[in-house]
Amino acid sequence: MTENVVLLAHGSGGTLSQELIEQIFVRHMADDVLSGMEDAAIVPLPSEPHGSLALTTDSFVVQPLFFPGGDIGKLSVCGTVNDLAMRGARPLYLTTGYVIEEGFPMADLDRIAASQAATARAAGVRIVAGDTKVVERGSGDGVFINTAGIGLVPDGVRISAGNAQPGDAILLSGAVGDHGLAIMTRREGLEFASPLSSDCAPLNDLVARMLAACTQIHVLRDPTRGGVATALNELAERSGVSMEIAEEAVPVHAPVAAAAELLGLDPLYVANEGKLIAIVPAGEAGALLAAMRAHPLGAEATAIGRVLEGNAGRVVLRTALGTRRLLDRLAGEQLPRIC
Amino acid sequence: MTENVVLLAHGSGGTLSQELIEQIFVRHMADDVLSGMEDAAIVPLPSEPHGSLALTTDSFVVQPLFFPGGDIGKLSVCGTVNDLAMRGARPLYLTTGYVIEEGFPMADLDRIAASQAATARAAGVRIVAGDTKVVERGSGDGVFINTAGIGLVPDGVRISAGNAQPGDAILLSGAVGDHGLAIMTRREGLEFASPLSSDCAPLNDLVARMLAACTQIHVLRDPTRGGVATALNELAERSGVSMEIAEEAVPVHAPVAAAAELLGLDPLYVANEGKLIAIVPAGEAGALLAAMRAHPLGAEATAIGRVLEGNAGRVVLRTALGTRRLLDRLAGEQLPRIC
Repeated sequence: MTENVVLLAHGSGGTLSQELIEQIFVRHMADDVLSGMEDAAIVPLPSEPHGSLALTTDSFVVQPLFFPGGDIGKLSVCGTVNDLAMRGARPLYLTTGYVIEEGFPMADLDRIAASQAATARAAGVRIVAGDTKVVERGSGDGVFINTAGIGLVPDGVRISAGNAQPGDAILLSGAVGDHGLAIMTRREGLEFASPLSSDCAPLNDLVARMLAACTQIHVLRDPTRGGVATALNELAERSGVSMEIAEEAVPVHAPVAAAAELLGLDPLYVANEGKLIAIVPAGEAGALLAAMRAHPLGAEATAIGRVLEGNAGRVVLRTALGTRRLLDRLAGEQLPRIC
Repeated sequence: MTENVVLLAHGSGGTLSQELIEQIFVRHMADDVLSGMEDAAIVPLPSEPHGSLALTTDSFVVQPLFFPGGDIGKLSVCGTVNDLAMRGARPLYLTTGYVIEEGFPMADLDRIAASQAATARAAGVRIVAGDTKVVERGSGDGVFINTAGIGLVPDGVRISAGNAQPGDAILLSGAVGDHGLAIMTRREGLEFASPLSSDCAPLNDLVARMLAACTQIHVLRDPTRGGVATALNELAERSGVSMEIAEEAVPVHAPVAAAAELLGLDPLYVANEGKLIAIVPAGEAGALLAAMRAHPLGAEATAIGRVLEGNAGRVVLRTALGTRRLLDRLAGEQLPRIC
């Protein structure tokens, strides 16, 4: 690039816009459809004659843009791929829109786009359409990225936040709080002996293995903003059921627990970007857990509780001491701009 | 809403987030799929067994958020619907992502969401998935909206920026510069006897009529950022052809011409949000123009020039005096944040 920072003119739609698109986005993403610079990308209809489409969108405003275990580019792919996977969909295509603040270093933009492209390749999903806007210095904050996604849901898959049934087992694919605490400790300038790292990862391959092992998955949910506690509350409410969670069953990595204590945060309310909750008939839980543990992203998978009848929307935490307390959803703003 | 401005906690993923989504977005959009509050929306695969999907994304950062003839909500639907239509696609579904600055008036957000929903209904397209993020005061600028879209391209439609053929006629659906000048005069606080109004409109119905009248449309392009001049340059370059445009054939409304002169702007470089360029075989131009003029959004449609062989990428403007000058693409930043 002839410029080393992004200028307002890079958002003009003129010569500099084209240069930015070609030299940053098209170069990293190297997709024939994207390179065509058309108003819209044309892609084939899924060849399966049946099934449904899954559609989702997510905007990413995380600060800092680069953090241990990832960056906003990687996060922007994982978040949207995971939202598709949580409906049992196979992610097919992504679109991405960047809102860039004037003066943003071109080298950082290049690094973010490269990371976004690499994550998409790793997840097996194509970024086929993009858009770039530039706002004046002080009207944005570095880079915001929107990623929308489209996926294919096979016939017969009926995974929904409203499908939890009394008697179902509640599974968690791994330890909680890694993403949120990695961001917060970096943001606060804290240093720990065991450095924290975001769990940010695309979960579509794990979900594909899970669907192959168990056709009776009722609910999948990635506990991002608001953490596991808020996600469980949403699911209990949508499904008209209550839930009981065993506190000591929820895995928390030691450095995460230490950082959470230092910062006064409860890991159950902290965002994850590479974990999922699965709710399945109790009789299927064993086989599903085995399939999850056979996958690198589910190695620490475990059962954390069960779905109960009545008291719709209520989530109870059973502590190690045997006491019970209500696990409410996140009320205020615990961790702004965590994703 | 219990709050009259947007708080950081409205972006937390917790209770206030849910309140914001339900009371603003779900209320206006009233779509069963959106109301389901799932990670991703599930929609049927298009029932046509053939055809292709069109995918596009656009972020909107226009200032001011409310302008004569529209607002960012309306614009966010028109821009994306039009990008789909420019590939000959029938728009089906939209997703939308809001990045809101802390302190933004709830009443303005409500107005924007209502306008977005009304425009989607008018265009016959469903908003099926959404996302909301909130950034600190000073880290954004009111509201940014991303809208991604998916449409269905019928078999046999081959409309592309690279399809212009020597001998083709270049048609324009109406007068240029209305959107950009409406924004600029409002931004500059200028008043005119004849108030300017943005041409912001969804063009999918016009395009459907055009496709019914003419199966040989080679190129469609909505001349947004950079205006007609920049769009023609892109098309000439992509198609490996040159073009000649008759300056006096390009319609410009009198108040637009007056405002452009006052502000030192050339309407050919000013953004439009409800106009399209169509490039078709010369023999089809008459029938297509008749079909365009029969539609309210094409009433002022006219032929503005023709496609020539050689000199790939070159666009020449023939003036009323008979002189010729090169019509280059927009180089710098003429009108920041026009869409």
